[in-house]
Amino acid sequence: MWKKEFFNSLENLGVPSHMIKRSSIGFNAIWKPIMELFQQRKIPELGWSNFQIRQLLDILSNMDSDKDPGSIRIGEREGRISTDILNDISGGFCHGIGRSGELTAAQPKAAGASLMQNLTNKIVLSLIKSLGLPNVKAALTIPFGTGMSIGMAIRGALNYYKIDFHEKPIILMTQIDHKSPRKGIEYIGGIIEIIPGRYGENYYAKEGVFTNIEEIKEIFQTNSNKISAIVSSTCFFAPRVPDNIKEIAKFAKENQIIHIINNAYGLQTPTLLKIIRQSIDAGRVDAIIQSTDKNFLTPVGGAVITSPNPDLIDAISKCYAGRASASPVVQLLVSLLSMGKQGYLSKIEKQQQNRKILEEALSNVAKEFNEHIIECNNPVSCAMSLKNVNPDKIQDLGGILYNLRVTGPRFINIHEDPFGSCTNEMKWPYIVMNAAIGVKKEHINEAVVRLKRAIKQIK
Amino acid sequence: MWKKEFFNSLENLGVPSHMIKRSSIGFNAIWKPIMELFQQRKIPELGWSNFQIRQLLDILSNMDSDKDPGSIRIGEREGRISTDILNDISGGFCHGIGRSGELTAAQPKAAGASLMQNLTNKIVLSLIKSLGLPNVKAALTIPFGTGMSIGMAIRGALNYYKIDFHEKPIILMTQIDHKSPRKGIEYIGGIIEIIPGRYGENYYAKEGVFTNIEEIKEIFQTNSNKISAIVSSTCFFAPRVPDNIKEIAKFAKENQIIHIINNAYGLQTPTLLKIIRQSIDAGRVDAIIQSTDKNFLTPVGGAVITSPNPDLIDAISKCYAGRASASPVVQLLVSLLSMGKQGYLSKIEKQQQNRKILEEALSNVAKEFNEHIIECNNPVSCAMSLKNVNPDKIQDLGGILYNLRVTGPRFINIHEDPFGSCTNEMKWPYIVMNAAIGVKKEHINEAVVRLKRAIKQIK
Amino acid sequence: MWKKEFFNSLENLGVPSHMIKRSSIGFNAIWKPIMELFQQRKIPELGWSNFQIRQLLDILSNMDSDKDPGSIRIGEREGRISTDILNDISGGFCHGIGRSGELTAAQPKAAGASLMQNLTNKIVLSLIKSLGLPNVKAALTIPFGTGMSIGMAIRGALNYYKIDFHEKPIILMTQIDHKSPRKGIEYIGGIIEIIPGRYGENYYAKEGVFTNIEEIKEIFQTNSNKISAIVSSTCFFAPRVPDNIKEIAKFAKENQIIHIINNAYGLQTPTLLKIIRQSIDAGRVDAIIQSTDKNFLTPVGGAVITSPNPDLIDAISKCYAGRASASPVVQLLVSLLSMGKQGYLSKIEKQQQNRKILEEALSNVAKEFNEHIIECNNPVSCAMSLKNVNPDKIQDLGGILYNLRVTGPRFINIHEDPFGSCTNEMKWPYIVMNAAIGVKKEHINEAVVRLKRAIKQIK
Amino acid sequence: MWKKEFFNSLENLGVPSHMIKRSSIGFNAIWKPIMELFQQRKIPELGWSNFQIRQLLDILSNMDSDKDPGSIRIGEREGRISTDILNDISGGFCHGIGRSGELTAAQPKAAGASLMQNLTNKIVLSLIKSLGLPNVKAALTIPFGTGMSIGMAIRGALNYYKIDFHEKPIILMTQIDHKSPRKGIEYIGGIIEIIPGRYGENYYAKEGVFTNIEEIKEIFQTNSNKISAIVSSTCFFAPRVPDNIKEIAKFAKENQIIHIINNAYGLQTPTLLKIIRQSIDAGRVDAIIQSTDKNFLTPVGGAVITSPNPDLIDAISKCYAGRASASPVVQLLVSLLSMGKQGYLSKIEKQQQNRKILEEALSNVAKEFNEHIIECNNPVSCAMSLKNVNPDKIQDLGGILYNLRVTGPRFINIHEDPFGSCTNEMKWPYIVMNAAIGVKKEHINEAVVRLKRAIKQIK
Repeated sequence: MWKKEFFNSLENLGVPSHMIKRSSIGFNAIWKPIMELFQQRKIPELGWSNFQIRQLLDILSNMDSDKDPGSIRIGEREGRISTDILNDISGGFCHGIGRSGELTAAQPKAAGASLMQNLTNKIVLSLIKSLGLPNVKAALTIPFGTGMSIGMAIRGALNYYKIDFHEKPIILMTQIDHKSPRKGIEYIGGIIEIIPGRYGENYYAKEGVFTNIEEIKEIFQTNSNKISAIVSSTCFFAPRVPDNIKEIAKFAKENQIIHIINNAYGLQTPTLLKIIRQSIDAGRVDAIIQSTDKNFLTPVGGAVITSPNPDLIDAISKCYAGRASASPVVQLLVSLLSMGKQGYLSKIEKQQQNRKILEEALSNVAKEFNEHIIECNNPVSCAMSLKNVNPDKIQDLGGILYNLRVTGPRFINIHEDPFGSCTNEMKWPYIVMNAAIGVKKEHINEAVVRLKRAIKQIK
Repeated sequence: MWKKEFFNSLENLGVPSHMIKRSSIGFNAIWKPIMELFQQRKIPELGWSNFQIRQLLDILSNMDSDKDPGSIRIGEREGRISTDILNDISGGFCHGIGRSGELTAAQPKAAGASLMQNLTNKIVLSLIKSLGLPNVKAALTIPFGTGMSIGMAIRGALNYYKIDFHEKPIILMTQIDHKSPRKGIEYIGGIIEIIPGRYGENYYAKEGVFTNIEEIKEIFQTNSNKISAIVSSTCFFAPRVPDNIKEIAKFAKENQIIHIINNAYGLQTPTLLKIIRQSIDAGRVDAIIQSTDKNFLTPVGGAVITSPNPDLIDAISKCYAGRASASPVVQLLVSLLSMGKQGYLSKIEKQQQNRKILEEALSNVAKEFNEHIIECNNPVSCAMSLKNVNPDKIQDLGGILYNLRVTGPRFINIHEDPFGSCTNEMKWPYIVMNAAIGVKKEHINEAVVRLKRAIKQIK
Repeated sequence: MWKKEFFNSLENLGVPSHMIKRSSIGFNAIWKPIMELFQQRKIPELGWSNFQIRQLLDILSNMDSDKDPGSIRIGEREGRISTDILNDISGGFCHGIGRSGELTAAQPKAAGASLMQNLTNKIVLSLIKSLGLPNVKAALTIPFGTGMSIGMAIRGALNYYKIDFHEKPIILMTQIDHKSPRKGIEYIGGIIEIIPGRYGENYYAKEGVFTNIEEIKEIFQTNSNKISAIVSSTCFFAPRVPDNIKEIAKFAKENQIIHIINNAYGLQTPTLLKIIRQSIDAGRVDAIIQSTDKNFLTPVGGAVITSPNPDLIDAISKCYAGRASASPVVQLLVSLLSMGKQGYLSKIEKQQQNRKILEEALSNVAKEFNEHIIECNNPVSCAMSLKNVNPDKIQDLGGILYNLRVTGPRFINIHEDPFGSCTNEMKWPYIVMNAAIGVKKEHINEAVVRLKRAIKQIK
Repeated sequence: MWKKEFFNSLENLGVPSHMIKRSSIGFNAIWKPIMELFQQRKIPELGWSNFQIRQLLDILSNMDSDKDPGSIRIGEREGRISTDILNDISGGFCHGIGRSGELTAAQPKAAGASLMQNLTNKIVLSLIKSLGLPNVKAALTIPFGTGMSIGMAIRGALNYYKIDFHEKPIILMTQIDHKSPRKGIEYIGGIIEIIPGRYGENYYAKEGVFTNIEEIKEIFQTNSNKISAIVSSTCFFAPRVPDNIKEIAKFAKENQIIHIINNAYGLQTPTLLKIIRQSIDAGRVDAIIQSTDKNFLTPVGGAVITSPNPDLIDAISKCYAGRASASPVVQLLVSLLSMGKQGYLSKIEKQQQNRKILEEALSNVAKEFNEHIIECNNPVSCAMSLKNVNPDKIQDLGGILYNLRVTGPRFINIHEDPFGSCTNEMKWPYIVMNAAIGVKKEHINEAVVRLKRAIKQIK
């Protein structure tokens, strides 16, 4: 990366040549991974130091025109900022990303941001492939979250397949009691038809909330001509289990409808990726949506859309209107580089250990209070029944844990409102806790200790 | 902000009491504007120092749960990040903003980000009001740009007025040759009907591209029952002039359709704000959209929607799906605080001076080459005819300026493609240059010098 | 630290009261250790987060007059700086520390820096006491290293005891083959008389380089009337062992001469501190000097002088001429806070484990090449004889390791120059490696592997 | 600086070649001045951006061994730090500067810091030469202030000329009522003989405090054999005028004694530099000492020693004991680069304008209260008599200004203590204000307004 002339220019500055030579070895060792990234364009094996990450951002952001000390800028917007803080908190990318035409179009004033975006998409794609999805062929980092991105994927696919007429499109969606995906679809003018969740033994686990491929087919029959797409889901809180994605993919293929997989935080779970991989091979999968913060430990606000079809990814990119904030993209880049492939794999491994620890710890609580762990085999979360707790006191339980500074547990009191359980068939209230990627073991153990204390308090 | 106990605790640390007392005066002077901001919730008169701005961000971001050293976090996402750089480049707001329900809903895990967002909306509203729009009543900072925000405003208004049926909505839009607003509307499933631009003397200037209220009415007659909204525009490159917003507002009121004003970079122009203010009073204006980077010198990627109707702003906020990146919001906050009201007003003043300088400088060029300045009175940009330049060489002109490191000039060669002129009625090619807020006088002068050089080169 | 009014001022900003209340708990948990530090003025039990450390620096540096936005500054120096970077890389303390009168005098323009300095001295004193020196009563952080600080301590003591006449003072010093202490004494105008090191069994270990109390007494007899002080040493590379400090202290007391202990990196070694503690009780110890970087992992350039006599520390502080750079002081403060007492103790523990690992690893090498580990029981370093290596090749050995990027090993080839061995009595060349505080286990093991490779290469 | 391969490696990353080419122009424009600095080793004409300065620091500090990711470190100190903050607040130079042998010796573990130090010395020398001292030949940046540096220069010169015997050296010094220089000399074991200041018309101005070459000669006669050096002064507060340096230089040459010039803040004053230049040519000048903060707007704590004799500078460097904090050196480097030569010259120009403004404003006060401005022509400060103020109230005046947040004015009440006036011959109390480099015009005017208010208050 650094010319030989540079080291030559250090001669006769009071430091002997052999010292400069020696120190140039260490110096180049720092910059080598940066050069390799530009050449290889894939996730590095080892995580980078903060210094290396900042150097990369500096290199890229200084290719944008607002950094060129000799440029004459007379456009209506020129990446001008009122204070340097803005440069710092945007990672240096004041021009944003994209062009009015397309989210991934090269912006003439922002060659650096454009390179940054392309690099990020290639890097995240290389990681996702290596995690178990070799059959996705393109990835696009989106500057908003999963819900909005599901909408955007549908909008892009409707454009791509030119199946958007004067009537609004109807979108099938398996029941996920989460408002964002629904809103994301309504946002683009879609009408949603929900496939209801059922409770019981199923294709995935001994018990849990699942959806039924037969019901999907049935609902489809009734108004097949207007249905454009189906959204299936791999991730939700226990006792929800993943949809039968493979069957849905086959169904989508047979009926020629778009199939979008909401894989919100599924990249951390190899078994889910295996299911998706098989679904791509066996049926139709148009796009798979995942959150950047839930999978890759970035600040909230980004998503990655992947697809076996690069042209579809292009079409999705083209439906975005105008330039966008570069922040979610640069944040993903930073996070991936800081972990490296090895770092990410070891976080996945730890997540799996923590998931076991969580179940064991909660099992002890269940035993003590005569409850049971719902055996739904959810890869991230764990649900315990609260059948022996006075339903009127369940809200208090939540309040007590909140005051004990435990964030994240969900109490679903079906007697009050089944929303959250993804079905109308649950028999008792329950609590869910998560052992998601990045959680600390101590937090899991301490959360369970405090839960026990809280249950005793209300009993 | 700081307890008396704090200063007391500094006694007997080797520094005499009178020195501590004296230094506490300077110390409190630094924190006073921060305290006042929380109390008054409006743009400060004077700009803040970088230190004060960072303190405010620190105070707010440390109210988020991911910063609480004693919290136990077992949700599926907890604002976890893989490296501190992510905290730095997000301004500290790792939880993003909003909740699945609504963009402005208070997020229980992110009290600080929620406060930050509310403060920002109040501050930008206070500034906009004082700039000349006292009759707007609410403002919402949107984590994407103008084009997407126009779509979002329409989506929110359709929801608010419950006028969205199985058919897609048809949206009238005055001709603006900019892809983003069109795409933003198509994104939400809207169908666009363009009111074509006309060239000549008009309601605003001696010459220029304008739209005709009679044509709007005519087009509306033909399919009135399906038209939901009209989008008008105040800002575009010369020779386009602002729409006759007041007449459009009256028309929208009479015909009970939604009226959205695309005021992309109009906040820097008092005369435009006066027109909008009168339009609100005289007719119907539902929402006004403006870019944060074009008006407030932030990095690209945000917009502010204002409205005389706070409930409509709520409805718009509610149509966003899920949490969003806090970056565009915190970037706006930082920029506003760094300038203060006085700083912003002085930037507006300078813009107006620079606009004059631009016209004078271009006039000299026009004289030299026998061209003329189009007298359209555009408040930001200035267009000069290129009737005496060989049309085949116009592209070369652009290339030469690009290589001379001049960014931002636009060459519209109507002989090749009228797109960009907002009409089919232009008679000659032309060049546009901008004296937008934040431009440097030296850049304007130098750009014109280089333009001259470039024209000579191709002649 | 934060007034109740602050939290009250957050009401009605879109976040419910109970959320603000909850988040104020986490918020206050962050600031609590800062408040406690001001009150307790001792090393915190637990290390602080970077955010907390930066907050403390901000609070203190903003009490300096150069930060007061309302001050009118017309002195000849006013803490003015040419760029903000200077504020960053000085920790914010542009006024430096001290006053022309004294290093620790409160500077009226820099109440914050003065407080910072006092706090640092109190904190480092509290830590040193708790490590095993309860009988030192004051500590002074000096803005230069051990060598210069030894000189400064002597200068201060000469002033304090008013024993400095027209003749230059003669200073006894036990043999330490390190140039800095000698130069520090010459710098203040002292004349040095060396007590030569001897090799063999001694008061401390089976073998090693030591000094003989009888020889000290002998040398003293010859010119007692002109000798003002003796400098003893606890730390040097193996095979040097600590001086017999207790005997030297008794000797200093009997003969009424100043006794300065060079404890360069001895704070990491509890057994050395025990010896010093006993020496203070049994004889005379005026001042003990230690390096900040070698003991406390700061950047190079500071030292801490401690003494059982606070008045002597005052006198030392008073002999410094003018204000000084605040950097070495603020760097010590930052390092101590980042580790906390527990963090420091655990580093000491690890050092001791690593020292064992080093000896074991080197022992294997010794066995392989028929060398032996010198059994001098040095608490940080370990020396291995090189009697079976061709003396002409010893320099090559060093070169090979240097090229293998191993920094820090010392090769003493007594056949060429005994300097470094602290004696003329060594019989063979040797190599020394260190397991100092902060070293990584992997580095020790890898260094030994590479040493083996290097020895094989030259044999 | 950047290899062509780097830009080649950006191909096919979604950005067209012509954009990369164009952006590489701006990119290289940023790095060009850095490359030139390494090649030319002198102060750049134009000041650098913060980004460029930080890049230089990064490049240099990453050549130190503590940054080498592949190094194995087993010394007793290895630039290890406990937290990254320490890296930030030391500019990245954790190894400090120098070696036990010498302050400017290349440190094998810190090639970067060694280069940084050499660069700084060359850059500051190039600036000082161009300001008006072409006949100085070497510069050394010292990690402590003017007072300590005067002592160090004497210590180095005594070593260099080998004129230091068993008796302590006697140093002549013209009267400067400032404790630091005196202490700096006593610190190295010198005995000071003061040449008293006199008041009246003199070689420099109509009135003022000066020293008399005849008195110097007289005092020298009385004990010539023991006097080693003389310290003269160019800068002190009005009414002190510069010493008659040229005559003193001739005297030093004739009598073969060391001559050190205390030029504390004289680099900002071309006329003083002219006097020094002539003195070097006409007589003997060994070393000239100047403060980094007072001349170059760095944080307090550094000085620059220059000399017409590079060997003497070497000798001074060699008398420092051990490594030192790199902070004062890196701070000087940063400050010089941020200003550039043009920036510094324009600050000098402004200082001269401000000095005039100060005198005019004070003259008005003098007229109003029947006082007079002492016509001593001091280039930085201005003194006004207080003969008509009740002497008992002068302290109150100081207190009032302090409470009005005016820092820097000095009140000398000779009736109480003549210290500060540099003589016993002043007739009335007076006040001094400064218009030093970097002061703001508004501060001068406001300070005078408040002074007026204060005088009225006590009358």
